[in-house]
Amino acid sequence: MPTAANLPAVAAFNETVVLDAVRRSADGLSRVEVAAATGLSAQTVTNVTRRLLAQGVIREAGKHSEGSPGKPRTILRLDPAGAYAVGVHLDPTVITCVLLDLEGVVVSHLRRPSPPDGDAVATLAATAEAIAALLATPGVDSGRVIGVGVATPGPIDTETGVVVRPPLIPGWNDFHLRDELTAATGLPALLAKDVTSAAVAERWRGPAGASGDYAFVYYDTGVGVGVGFVLGGSVYTGFTDNAGDVGHALVDPGGALCTCGRRGCYGESVRPYRLVMQGLWAGILPVPPGLEIVAWEDAPLDVETVDALFTRLAAAAEAGDGQAAEIVDRSIRSTAFYLSNLTALLDLDRVVFGGPSWARVESRYLDQLPQRLAELHIDTLTHPTAILTSAVGEDVAAVGAACLVLDANFAP
Amino acid sequence: MPTAANLPAVAAFNETVVLDAVRRSADGLSRVEVAAATGLSAQTVTNVTRRLLAQGVIREAGKHSEGSPGKPRTILRLDPAGAYAVGVHLDPTVITCVLLDLEGVVVSHLRRPSPPDGDAVATLAATAEAIAALLATPGVDSGRVIGVGVATPGPIDTETGVVVRPPLIPGWNDFHLRDELTAATGLPALLAKDVTSAAVAERWRGPAGASGDYAFVYYDTGVGVGVGFVLGGSVYTGFTDNAGDVGHALVDPGGALCTCGRRGCYGESVRPYRLVMQGLWAGILPVPPGLEIVAWEDAPLDVETVDALFTRLAAAAEAGDGQAAEIVDRSIRSTAFYLSNLTALLDLDRVVFGGPSWARVESRYLDQLPQRLAELHIDTLTHPTAILTSAVGEDVAAVGAACLVLDANFAP
Repeated sequence: MPTAANLPAVAAFNETVVLDAVRRSADGLSRVEVAAATGLSAQTVTNVTRRLLAQGVIREAGKHSEGSPGKPRTILRLDPAGAYAVGVHLDPTVITCVLLDLEGVVVSHLRRPSPPDGDAVATLAATAEAIAALLATPGVDSGRVIGVGVATPGPIDTETGVVVRPPLIPGWNDFHLRDELTAATGLPALLAKDVTSAAVAERWRGPAGASGDYAFVYYDTGVGVGVGFVLGGSVYTGFTDNAGDVGHALVDPGGALCTCGRRGCYGESVRPYRLVMQGLWAGILPVPPGLEIVAWEDAPLDVETVDALFTRLAAAAEAGDGQAAEIVDRSIRSTAFYLSNLTALLDLDRVVFGGPSWARVESRYLDQLPQRLAELHIDTLTHPTAILTSAVGEDVAAVGAACLVLDANFAP
Repeated sequence: MPTAANLPAVAAFNETVVLDAVRRSADGLSRVEVAAATGLSAQTVTNVTRRLLAQGVIREAGKHSEGSPGKPRTILRLDPAGAYAVGVHLDPTVITCVLLDLEGVVVSHLRRPSPPDGDAVATLAATAEAIAALLATPGVDSGRVIGVGVATPGPIDTETGVVVRPPLIPGWNDFHLRDELTAATGLPALLAKDVTSAAVAERWRGPAGASGDYAFVYYDTGVGVGVGFVLGGSVYTGFTDNAGDVGHALVDPGGALCTCGRRGCYGESVRPYRLVMQGLWAGILPVPPGLEIVAWEDAPLDVETVDALFTRLAAAAEAGDGQAAEIVDRSIRSTAFYLSNLTALLDLDRVVFGGPSWARVESRYLDQLPQRLAELHIDTLTHPTAILTSAVGEDVAAVGAACLVLDANFAP
């Protein structure tokens, strides 16, 4: 339901409207430009900006006079030190924490190895310790840290703040992560899926002026692949905030056996564990000490080992090893097939790739995907789809989780 | 970019805000309720409603005093005769036209057979004649008809108003449908995909208070199946308004050969033509005069013949013919598989089925789909998906196209 602005809470609402306009501008806005961008009257803008200046969340940053005959206008920008948000990404292998200032810039970040076996209590303690270290960043007023966003693999229950049945971290089921984190840090917390957080970060920090409808394909060592969506300019999360599961779409009927009992699921077709097992079976990767590798039989590899062997596999493919190349390239063909259907389904403008496992296969994917997509000749597509790498980098999910905290506090 | 309400065009904007609030209410709203729903001040609501009453688009409809100690309040409702919109659905077999009043009620509707071979000029003439007949509906002031919405198979080019490469109606390529229709009728026209129009109609006319994220699965004799989306409360159409193509998703690797050269595409797995051919090969459907049916060889069947044979096939399945049942049931299994992935991808609350071919298989689908979905055990789903039939009926795409015209004129 659209609502107009003369609500009882008009002052607070208009403050977020002005703050949002300033946040979204690359180079700051004058009061006249704020009025034009928001539809608020000049008088209202003057009053609202006075309050925001007093709160220390915006600042006056020079003057400009371009294109206007009158006196130079004072430019309003965010005061980056006006508020901070913590973003945490919990992954089976690593805990990533970032501190974002109000402009969305990463002021500080650090990583900790995830405790073994998905121990929830130990992970909470390690996370709380990492957050305390971030809050001690020199020059940061920890009193201005407004909350913690936590990105995790799904499914999640956003009402209770619980991660439900996360693959590879069984210890998290029924652990009240959000509330325990608030108890441990004293900060309000929110929970989001990693793929959603990645899409949020890309929307905030991606190419200036980027619009359209797009998918963020998130590639990691755990689940393998998930998708975040920016649709109609907004991050789309679904009925229970669990959108983005692509694991069991059929892409490669002769492909690997999935945990669901079927063959050729998209998740399994690209999951680093699966590609690494194929490399071990082919004899092109070193067998980890103490393991026996039987061709076509799965071996119990921990995520750190998978991660290290995946790096070797990708490097071998790049170095010209034909078997390694074929293993990676088959995953690229599977991805092309999936994306051809995804882009037709949602009429996407572009697909952005990122996540912890992406960098290792990035050049090979970017080389091959456009051609593989074109070869599929989906006759209902009316335009080509751009294939891009995230502008945010490896911390994308943690950055997005922190952006969600800023949004929750400062978006209208 | 969110904007507040004190725009230069505040009067017109606030009129649409009030009208929208009244449109969305099932039983009308008092001025006090309008103020509460829109955030507008009491004085603004009084002024805006006075103008809307003068324009004849709302009316005062009785009083109520429930729950309020003061004097009874006058209820505002839409004046259904205040404006009308025409909706047209162009399908390979039939032209459907509806006239909607401002409340979205179908005042009049009629159907014409589509001219043979997708003749665009003949279709335009038949459509214009049908619209003229609708406008002559007794009691309708044709001066209050505000436009025509046209729903067609995709892809479409909404900028030029052209249907691009529509399957089965090749004559439509490069025909400037939207502009030709305006020239022929004198009415502003807009073009939308049939699946999008169906989703729009379901959102406006479906169960009161229905919210959430859902897909409308549109089943017809032409393309077979497409999907419209209501996501985050809004109809989602994609970057070029062509969202909803599901034809080439892989669901049945051993299945029918598709025009794309692959086997087991979802569109082909449920397309009435394909199911009818299987019935002909099995010898359980009467061979049309003059045709020779060779097992495993496609035969040139026109859409009317397909439509009639599909009715017979569905009836035979219902009557207990085992072969007919297996043909239909395999399409249901394909649909269950596709939907399990679609609902996981978009975290949908429900799936609504409709379109011209739906009624014939409805009871069988509704009987079997929930169980087939449950059997797929997609472990990332956190909630069951409701499977429903459209509340709007067979004219759903035409109704939705007319709703789009009302939205374009009266939504904020």
